[in-house]
Amino acid sequence: MKQAMTQNIYDDPRFFKGYSGLPRSVHGLAGAPEWPSLRALLPPLSGASVIDLGCGFGWFCRWAREQGAFDVLGLDVSRNMLERARNETQDPNIRYEIADLEQLMLPAASFDLVYSSLAFHYIVDLDTMLNTVHRALKPGGRLVFSAEHPLLTAPSRPGWTVDGDGRKVWPVDDYLVEGPRTTDWLASGVVKQHRTIATYFRLLREAGFTPAHIEEWGPTDSQIAADPALAEERQRPTFMLFSAFR
Amino acid sequence: MKQAMTQNIYDDPRFFKGYSGLPRSVHGLAGAPEWPSLRALLPPLSGASVIDLGCGFGWFCRWAREQGAFDVLGLDVSRNMLERARNETQDPNIRYEIADLEQLMLPAASFDLVYSSLAFHYIVDLDTMLNTVHRALKPGGRLVFSAEHPLLTAPSRPGWTVDGDGRKVWPVDDYLVEGPRTTDWLASGVVKQHRTIATYFRLLREAGFTPAHIEEWGPTDSQIAADPALAEERQRPTFMLFSAFR
Repeated sequence: MKQAMTQNIYDDPRFFKGYSGLPRSVHGLAGAPEWPSLRALLPPLSGASVIDLGCGFGWFCRWAREQGAFDVLGLDVSRNMLERARNETQDPNIRYEIADLEQLMLPAASFDLVYSSLAFHYIVDLDTMLNTVHRALKPGGRLVFSAEHPLLTAPSRPGWTVDGDGRKVWPVDDYLVEGPRTTDWLASGVVKQHRTIATYFRLLREAGFTPAHIEEWGPTDSQIAADPALAEERQRPTFMLFSAFR
Repeated sequence: MKQAMTQNIYDDPRFFKGYSGLPRSVHGLAGAPEWPSLRALLPPLSGASVIDLGCGFGWFCRWAREQGAFDVLGLDVSRNMLERARNETQDPNIRYEIADLEQLMLPAASFDLVYSSLAFHYIVDLDTMLNTVHRALKPGGRLVFSAEHPLLTAPSRPGWTVDGDGRKVWPVDDYLVEGPRTTDWLASGVVKQHRTIATYFRLLREAGFTPAHIEEWGPTDSQIAADPALAEERQRPTFMLFSAFR
């Protein structure tokens, strides 16, 4: 029997310190360049029951309530992150609970929206989790999530290089070799699960979802004008976004 | 008004000679390593009306009739390829017609299966063509096609390289910069259209299709054992396969 458990890197002091300093941690949703595209995939939230898988500091949970969500449940594996989320939230209709997404248990047919930002690439047993999510959605409910793009996660040694002609390139290998990748990002030994876009699509279908949108995210011209470093996202995307219906 | 026209590289003598020598031209479907995966996406063909967009030498058309298809229409832009297809076919229920897929005209609700192998990445006006294909399928009919994978088509200068550690890698740039790519493959100046997986998915949805399968194709262990050169497909795939329902 599979018994995966999430590597709780977010409670590693060095990782947590680094993560807390990222623009998306300091500025919230506005600090995440892919947020406008992810937001565009959401249903109207007025009166909705919402769950955020990997809620971190609770930015999305609070935003969802501002949009009129009836209640919001934020789950995360990190005690550090939930502590800060609770400190920054005064709203009885937002609950935060500690949870390992590998062992997710949810009530059936209870949510209008399951949301997740950049958490699914940590999940080993994604098929089981997607089955749980599908069952937890009300009929017609929606799953909207982002994950790291397979071009980011594939390489055995990820990194930009410059070729003989001075061209900045992202060398790819092992693209179809799915499974764990250990990288040093904010801390050493961070383990992510590399999966292709086709595999995400297949797992959604097998869990009973109807995929409605796939996005390999890139910045707009005005985002690049405001932050020229984003231009490299057009060379090799970092994020992919999905929406799918129960 | 858009007025795209297919670059008919297949009737370039040098290209045609090179293409005619490829394993898939000499051995037909059995010479294409992705064929077993593509075949697995097909419906039962007994009694079916089938069309092959970019039929080349007619290998698939003849195979479809062997599987019991009622009639098969093969379309291609290349006179050279259709001439050989006609010479190798003795079957009144297989018709070959010259056609530019950019200007495709098809009768409505007439086909059970629209099939295409490695032709769609030549199409500039793919949205119009997919609308035509959708309309030409009977309700419940299926589109099954392969196209070049965006990792193959993306780079401004595609090719394997070896990095400083002796690792064979495929350098990627311009992944989200969709549009024409001019490469030298069998002949110089071959123009293909680079599109991401997400864009293929979106165009299918916008044309009214329900996508059922996406595959970033890789070889099986036994295929690699029989042809070790196929192993590099796991490092960077060449093909993607789709099926979608009207």
